[in-house]
Amino acid sequence: MRLLLALFVLTLNAQVDPRSIHEWRQARERALLSEFIPLVEIPNRASDKANIRRNADLVHSMLKQRGVSSRLLELEGAPPVVFGEISTPGAKRTLIFYAHYDGQPVDPREWTSPPFTAVLRDAKGQPVDWENASVFDAESRLYARSVSDDKAPIMAILAALDAMKALGIRHQANLKFFFEGEEEAGSPHLEQFAKTYKELLAGDVWLICDGPVHQNRQPSLYFGVRGVTAVELTVYGPKRELHSGHYGNWAPNPAMMLSRLLATMTDGEGKVLVAGFYDEVLPLSAAERQALLAVPAVDEQLKEELGLVNTDGSGARLVERIMLPSLNIRGLESAGTGNSARNVVPAKATASLDLRLVKGNDHRRQVEKLRAHLRLQGYFVTAQDPTDDERRKHSKIAKLTAREGYNAVRTSLDLPISRDVIATLRKTYPNLVLLPALGGSVPLWVFEQELQTPMIGVPIVNHDNSQHSFNENLRLANLWEGIVTMATLLAMP
Amino acid sequence: MRLLLALFVLTLNAQVDPRSIHEWRQARERALLSEFIPLVEIPNRASDKANIRRNADLVHSMLKQRGVSSRLLELEGAPPVVFGEISTPGAKRTLIFYAHYDGQPVDPREWTSPPFTAVLRDAKGQPVDWENASVFDAESRLYARSVSDDKAPIMAILAALDAMKALGIRHQANLKFFFEGEEEAGSPHLEQFAKTYKELLAGDVWLICDGPVHQNRQPSLYFGVRGVTAVELTVYGPKRELHSGHYGNWAPNPAMMLSRLLATMTDGEGKVLVAGFYDEVLPLSAAERQALLAVPAVDEQLKEELGLVNTDGSGARLVERIMLPSLNIRGLESAGTGNSARNVVPAKATASLDLRLVKGNDHRRQVEKLRAHLRLQGYFVTAQDPTDDERRKHSKIAKLTAREGYNAVRTSLDLPISRDVIATLRKTYPNLVLLPALGGSVPLWVFEQELQTPMIGVPIVNHDNSQHSFNENLRLANLWEGIVTMATLLAMP
Repeated sequence: MRLLLALFVLTLNAQVDPRSIHEWRQARERALLSEFIPLVEIPNRASDKANIRRNADLVHSMLKQRGVSSRLLELEGAPPVVFGEISTPGAKRTLIFYAHYDGQPVDPREWTSPPFTAVLRDAKGQPVDWENASVFDAESRLYARSVSDDKAPIMAILAALDAMKALGIRHQANLKFFFEGEEEAGSPHLEQFAKTYKELLAGDVWLICDGPVHQNRQPSLYFGVRGVTAVELTVYGPKRELHSGHYGNWAPNPAMMLSRLLATMTDGEGKVLVAGFYDEVLPLSAAERQALLAVPAVDEQLKEELGLVNTDGSGARLVERIMLPSLNIRGLESAGTGNSARNVVPAKATASLDLRLVKGNDHRRQVEKLRAHLRLQGYFVTAQDPTDDERRKHSKIAKLTAREGYNAVRTSLDLPISRDVIATLRKTYPNLVLLPALGGSVPLWVFEQELQTPMIGVPIVNHDNSQHSFNENLRLANLWEGIVTMATLLAMP
Repeated sequence: MRLLLALFVLTLNAQVDPRSIHEWRQARERALLSEFIPLVEIPNRASDKANIRRNADLVHSMLKQRGVSSRLLELEGAPPVVFGEISTPGAKRTLIFYAHYDGQPVDPREWTSPPFTAVLRDAKGQPVDWENASVFDAESRLYARSVSDDKAPIMAILAALDAMKALGIRHQANLKFFFEGEEEAGSPHLEQFAKTYKELLAGDVWLICDGPVHQNRQPSLYFGVRGVTAVELTVYGPKRELHSGHYGNWAPNPAMMLSRLLATMTDGEGKVLVAGFYDEVLPLSAAERQALLAVPAVDEQLKEELGLVNTDGSGARLVERIMLPSLNIRGLESAGTGNSARNVVPAKATASLDLRLVKGNDHRRQVEKLRAHLRLQGYFVTAQDPTDDERRKHSKIAKLTAREGYNAVRTSLDLPISRDVIATLRKTYPNLVLLPALGGSVPLWVFEQELQTPMIGVPIVNHDNSQHSFNENLRLANLWEGIVTMATLLAMP
């Protein structure tokens, strides 16, 4: 009986055929969208307690509907983690699928349609009445915050479970699902979740279902992510905004001071001039160097797509550039511009920076290097708005505050689990792209350090999805292929 | 009979005594505030057609109530000018009093109390229930947009007319009042008003009732204003905002490009490095140099008040600095900061600049110098967002748009009218401060060029009034003294 069952399972597994999954999906695209859309229409900023819980509850019930043993993991002050589990008798391995259901902030004024009202648009940007359509152009895109980052993988996993059941494809490994609700806020409780639920979260690999596939749209795997830390830098002028006629030319202008200060930080070609910025970077392994060389070229396509002639790094390829730490100005603000401009000498000017880190960097040390740089430029560096006394003592004052950051992770391409995952996906996708690291950041150090479990990234969404920005979107073809990708991994031994 | 009347007039004029005017005012401070407050509570952005007309109508009716022959001067598309006239038989001179009833934009979120709800606060910042008070501390301040800039002079003139009537002080000159409604929008129709109403606006001097008194709070006159032109400078990165993890370090960052570009514009000490920026500046006359030297020193007091250790110009005095053209960053914007920060490479970054001009500069030429500077820095300069084709051709693209500006004006201190106005006010104020020019800008070139009439500035408001910024305020002592100043000038021969 046991033998017969095992044979049956093997027979079933032989059915993991992309074509049959695509056929299954083609017959029910509208049903998939009508399950997905209510999920992306719930606002999902991590700090929005009420809505973030509505997201968690919905994901939880979507798992339960599929018979997945599911629960909410709770920690004081944290959005719940939606945790699901499928145990497989005789499994040799436990695969943990990670995704997050929270999203970046939105400024609705920037969006073409409201960020939490899902709109499907065809390849020409025309809205599609999806509820009354039966066939969808795979180049259509669904627009909403987090439709790509990172609710699409959740939907793809759930649909893959449906497809496997319908097509009789059995899973062979133990499967766990870990969907967190504060990744875009820096996952401040992830470490504590790992510590608190250590046994529950034991497994052989974390499959990080987040981030976009390679820009050539081919299925991809990534084996690392950059770390990140964000700092806010404010430079001070006069105590109050001044009339720029009466005082301009005499009162130091903080927007000019900030511009000059920022200009000292790079060479204008993307090389960061902060002392020691590139120290501590761990060199690439032979396998990583080889993988990098094999990554299909996309720079020229991307430059055309993004309207760029030159890129930072004197023409080095994007895949090489993301193997280095970065210093990025993510925002600037001082008084007003455009219709809000007033003739003033501003009282202060602020730059928000994000520092991306690679393996070997430490997020706190990286901020310290920046702090030292500010001092080298003659600034008194404080963590608060300056006091009158500090203003009397220092002509250049900068406030530097850092959000708690985290370090990079890079899983060796040579680990057995790395090789197995690569081999499994390559059967379905001979053109699978292997990226030693993704440029983006997820706090995966927790899995590496707290749980001693390697991570491998399984992206499914389109690279041109405007994630983190306005008009975030998901290309339907990516969701459809994502279902195949997830089914392939859910079924792996 | 004629002789008797003349003698009577002379007798009456002998009554121009500051003390009696102050006594008259002390008895009716609440009444003055209750007339003034409804005026400052009408929103007054020049582009707000409905409200700007409500302002004009109210000022018009306030003049009429005083028996001043008054009318609205209209031009297509322009807020009306409130024009009033008092003819005096046998007058040797016509004095034209200028003020403006429109104001700068407001961002209500920045204000402590709503910008169009007048609030009186005592010297400690505590609200005063003015409707139920009978005595006011002169150090109290009234808070509202335009309470200082520039509705206070209108109120002071009207109150001065009341005081003169009550105290039997007769005017000797012909008096005209010209209150415009789009000064803060750059007075785009002032030239056309001057051309259209040339005869109506004939006179011997324009008394410009705008701007603050010297920072030592002494009564002041100014004989010029800087010109101004505002430009908006936008620098472009990728066509759309990009995820800073996936693309940061590779996609050129427009906020960094803008910072580097701005940093090339000055030497960090306030000296503008744009080629030719200081050419064409007209040297000061002997009388102007002498007046500058006699201006009471306020720099140390101001630095303490504003929390500054150093000032631009290597320690040169404020009064000297405003005799030079300036380049001021009045605003910066790129993506978001603080709570609105997102991890992106912004698509663009914008700086709003105002260039102040002195006698000899031309506003169009000054913008051309800046445009040439951008080109020298390798930028392709356009007036629109770049096309795809332009993006393919140029790695550095800047959009530069200039609001129509205007030139500076400086009236000679040696003109007979200058000497007469100085002498008249010096009788009341022996400590009168003479400023060859104010740092601020009013398009007074129109009076000089179109009407061939000199201007003299009569400021009354406090320098620390936060004009153009949030929490604009008027120190009551300045309004009270302003009534005396206006009465003195209204009564001059």
